[in-house]
Amino acid sequence: MSISDGILFTDLYQLTMAQLYWRMGMAERRAQFDHTFRSYPDYGKHQAGYCVVAGLAPMIEWMAEARFGAAELDVLRSCESASGHRLFGEDFLSYLNDVGGFVDIDLWAVPEGRVVHPDTPITVVQGPLLVVQLLETGLLHHLNFETLIATKASRMTEAAHGGAVIEFGMRRAQNANPATRAAIIGGAIGSSNVGMSAVLGTEPKGTHAHSMVQVFMAVAGGELDAFRAYAEVYPDDCLLLVDTIDTLESGVPNAIKVFEELRAKGHTPVGIRLDSGDLAHLSVRSAAMLDKAGFEDATIVLSSQLDELTIFQIRSQIADEAPRYGVDADSVLQRLVYGVGSRMATSEGDPSLDGVYKLVAIENGDDGWMPATKISDTPAKVVNPGQKRLWRIYDDRGQATADVMSLHDDDMDTRPLELRHPSAPGVERVLAAGRISGVEEILTPVLTRDGSVADLGGIEEARGRRLADVERLDPGVRRLVNPHLYHVSLTPRLWDLKQELIARFAH
Amino acid sequence: MSISDGILFTDLYQLTMAQLYWRMGMAERRAQFDHTFRSYPDYGKHQAGYCVVAGLAPMIEWMAEARFGAAELDVLRSCESASGHRLFGEDFLSYLNDVGGFVDIDLWAVPEGRVVHPDTPITVVQGPLLVVQLLETGLLHHLNFETLIATKASRMTEAAHGGAVIEFGMRRAQNANPATRAAIIGGAIGSSNVGMSAVLGTEPKGTHAHSMVQVFMAVAGGELDAFRAYAEVYPDDCLLLVDTIDTLESGVPNAIKVFEELRAKGHTPVGIRLDSGDLAHLSVRSAAMLDKAGFEDATIVLSSQLDELTIFQIRSQIADEAPRYGVDADSVLQRLVYGVGSRMATSEGDPSLDGVYKLVAIENGDDGWMPATKISDTPAKVVNPGQKRLWRIYDDRGQATADVMSLHDDDMDTRPLELRHPSAPGVERVLAAGRISGVEEILTPVLTRDGSVADLGGIEEARGRRLADVERLDPGVRRLVNPHLYHVSLTPRLWDLKQELIARFAH
Repeated sequence: MSISDGILFTDLYQLTMAQLYWRMGMAERRAQFDHTFRSYPDYGKHQAGYCVVAGLAPMIEWMAEARFGAAELDVLRSCESASGHRLFGEDFLSYLNDVGGFVDIDLWAVPEGRVVHPDTPITVVQGPLLVVQLLETGLLHHLNFETLIATKASRMTEAAHGGAVIEFGMRRAQNANPATRAAIIGGAIGSSNVGMSAVLGTEPKGTHAHSMVQVFMAVAGGELDAFRAYAEVYPDDCLLLVDTIDTLESGVPNAIKVFEELRAKGHTPVGIRLDSGDLAHLSVRSAAMLDKAGFEDATIVLSSQLDELTIFQIRSQIADEAPRYGVDADSVLQRLVYGVGSRMATSEGDPSLDGVYKLVAIENGDDGWMPATKISDTPAKVVNPGQKRLWRIYDDRGQATADVMSLHDDDMDTRPLELRHPSAPGVERVLAAGRISGVEEILTPVLTRDGSVADLGGIEEARGRRLADVERLDPGVRRLVNPHLYHVSLTPRLWDLKQELIARFAH
Repeated sequence: MSISDGILFTDLYQLTMAQLYWRMGMAERRAQFDHTFRSYPDYGKHQAGYCVVAGLAPMIEWMAEARFGAAELDVLRSCESASGHRLFGEDFLSYLNDVGGFVDIDLWAVPEGRVVHPDTPITVVQGPLLVVQLLETGLLHHLNFETLIATKASRMTEAAHGGAVIEFGMRRAQNANPATRAAIIGGAIGSSNVGMSAVLGTEPKGTHAHSMVQVFMAVAGGELDAFRAYAEVYPDDCLLLVDTIDTLESGVPNAIKVFEELRAKGHTPVGIRLDSGDLAHLSVRSAAMLDKAGFEDATIVLSSQLDELTIFQIRSQIADEAPRYGVDADSVLQRLVYGVGSRMATSEGDPSLDGVYKLVAIENGDDGWMPATKISDTPAKVVNPGQKRLWRIYDDRGQATADVMSLHDDDMDTRPLELRHPSAPGVERVLAAGRISGVEEILTPVLTRDGSVADLGGIEEARGRRLADVERLDPGVRRLVNPHLYHVSLTPRLWDLKQELIARFAH
């Protein structure tokens, strides 16, 4: 692990605070931080109505590997403050050396792939104050980014309406490998990323680029020769990019010629890829040409700046336009595959998730755990205090209707269930027994302080959790534009605790 | 180097094309690819008028380390196509094993930190077709992202008008370490990122977060105690975050109390940080309070969702508002430091740069180098063909007035200098001798095929190049909103070659 990827992958203030806690004798007091996000991604003209959590397994792996070794301590030894003083004392460094890394931590989390909502604890960390403070930056970096991308990928997948989405974003991604992982959790069926696909145990996807056709144009017989070469090397996997010269005048006719040659030799061609122009129109026209030549099963891969709204729009245009060319719209839609690049891998429109990590409780000797909060002039930004549990309530249709935070010893079995709005006084919701089909606790133990790690499965399990959760969302919450707001609530007792702390700390 | 960070950090189609080139006997033919970007970042309400190139040194380092080792070949050995066939033959893998990595490459680049413009070659790569094709994805990933962030950072730095910008974006960055590096090339004076600062040889920045105040609120005497503890541990570096409870009613008065205690002991307090609310108004009000207590030199650090327009707006509001509170606006502006987070680290508004890597020439036996292009229905997207040089023309004021691509043997000394628009026929510009103060070649040799690497200096040299280049830009090009368009041109001979190829390849 390089010096910039290990335990020093952190903001300096985590370390200056750590030294302060240590000097004040507070370093080993147990504290709890909750990781939440404040709002769904807002892409400008469209908005997410839910998020898909991702990034936990890589974060846990990073925690296990990140250590204060000699190199890390040397970096801290050399840190100078603006006033020219050495920033960290030798005694403190010796303490860090003894601590070693992210030890003595209990951690609960909502498993990867699950649907999550704002202001609810997605990851809960308990441990020595110094250690859990140091964890903040790395935890947020892993979880913010992968959750952002899994969320975007889930939207793309929903827009594709059962069509396959493939992640093609490496070249313009800000961080391709975690983007690939998160896209697959979010619903993409695979990625062009060779290395990361190997790590994840999925088959990488892809065929050829314009450059191959350009090479044959410059030094051999042009596009047709390029396609023939591809068919010769990959006779049973022949998927041709048809827009290097002119899609309908050159690319598709040349592809059909090569497909016919393959068929004559007993091979089944795979299909074509369209990477420019009016993709909906070209899909219909290409499908008509392929059908006429007897390649009704040939796949049409679409790429070029796709996002959820473009995919939605392409599908709707095809439904309108196909009949005009004597083509069955459904037969076109069913053969489409979507190659999605930078707009998924960077979460175009909203490139950061506003995840935060806030102190909610701290041990205080004989008093035990003291709830903490951070107050704010904006009521929605006041941190929900104390040690909490997170529940998902399913309605009589089996659909998720609210995520509820409770105190640790709250009774969730009594009916009707009373719920409070997290910040607006007096806004209550009362759910009678008949309106509740299930109450599910969704935070799961992941790490315990003895060092054991729960097995939450791999990427396939995470994909399965996403699918199951999304299917239990109201269609209005899943809407791509202006989605319906999902309920996030507090139990009455947690509401009361929050008000008590606001009253105590407000100036 | 892990399997996902090495030579398999690539799109699958680079490898399928590589195998095809090898089977067709084309693998070792020398080819040239040009890396360009198509358009300046467009952030929606504001747009960049120039880019700052970054990412070259990490890319060169990656190239040197990325190798086909046993693990990489095993991954390829196990790749299966959709039809269930093994994708890569053992003979091809054995060839890759012999090739080893990114060998036999000549590479020229515009050095990091320099200002660059669309459709001009920023990186030029010559080498065996198979090898340079494989380089595409990794090259673009490194250069697209760092250039994007260095560009954004340069805009923030310009908006700050000489005020210091510090990079604080780790927790919500998509890729914090390269973002930190690029932000510093783009003009940030430092970063909170401890590990990356160590790698770059800069001092990391930061003091404390809300959580420290929250801890003292929960288990000790509250904000004042927290500030006193901080002052005790860091008496000569005391910079206090004053918005945990109420900035003007609690935070600033408590900070001043602690500053007075420090002063009594002979220390000089550093300042305060504002992280919420109306930052312009609070800066003025805090400055007035600090002045009154005799802390006229105390720094005011601003953070909370800053970007170039917010910084611009805050400065202009302070200029308006300060006099109303009896404060000298300049004295407030001069003490400001800007802590910029996710909006810089993710390039909020436009999170990807549309860098491309296109074949422009290929060797063809006795014919020597053949120019190549990619044609398109959109004239601006037609690739500028052939082996070219890139020049920057300075006008009689010493300001950069055009970037010009020429053929390799074009005469750039003749006056007047004739320039052509890259895609619009008949658009010419003629520069007389008196209007030209300099013609500078801006592509520099970086790698040669014998393996030698040019020394382009470190991060400080890159910072210096940015500053020098930005100062030689027209103020209209530097404007944050709707910037003036910089000229990118072709020599007449390159224009003619381009037209000849379009005529030859157009369908």
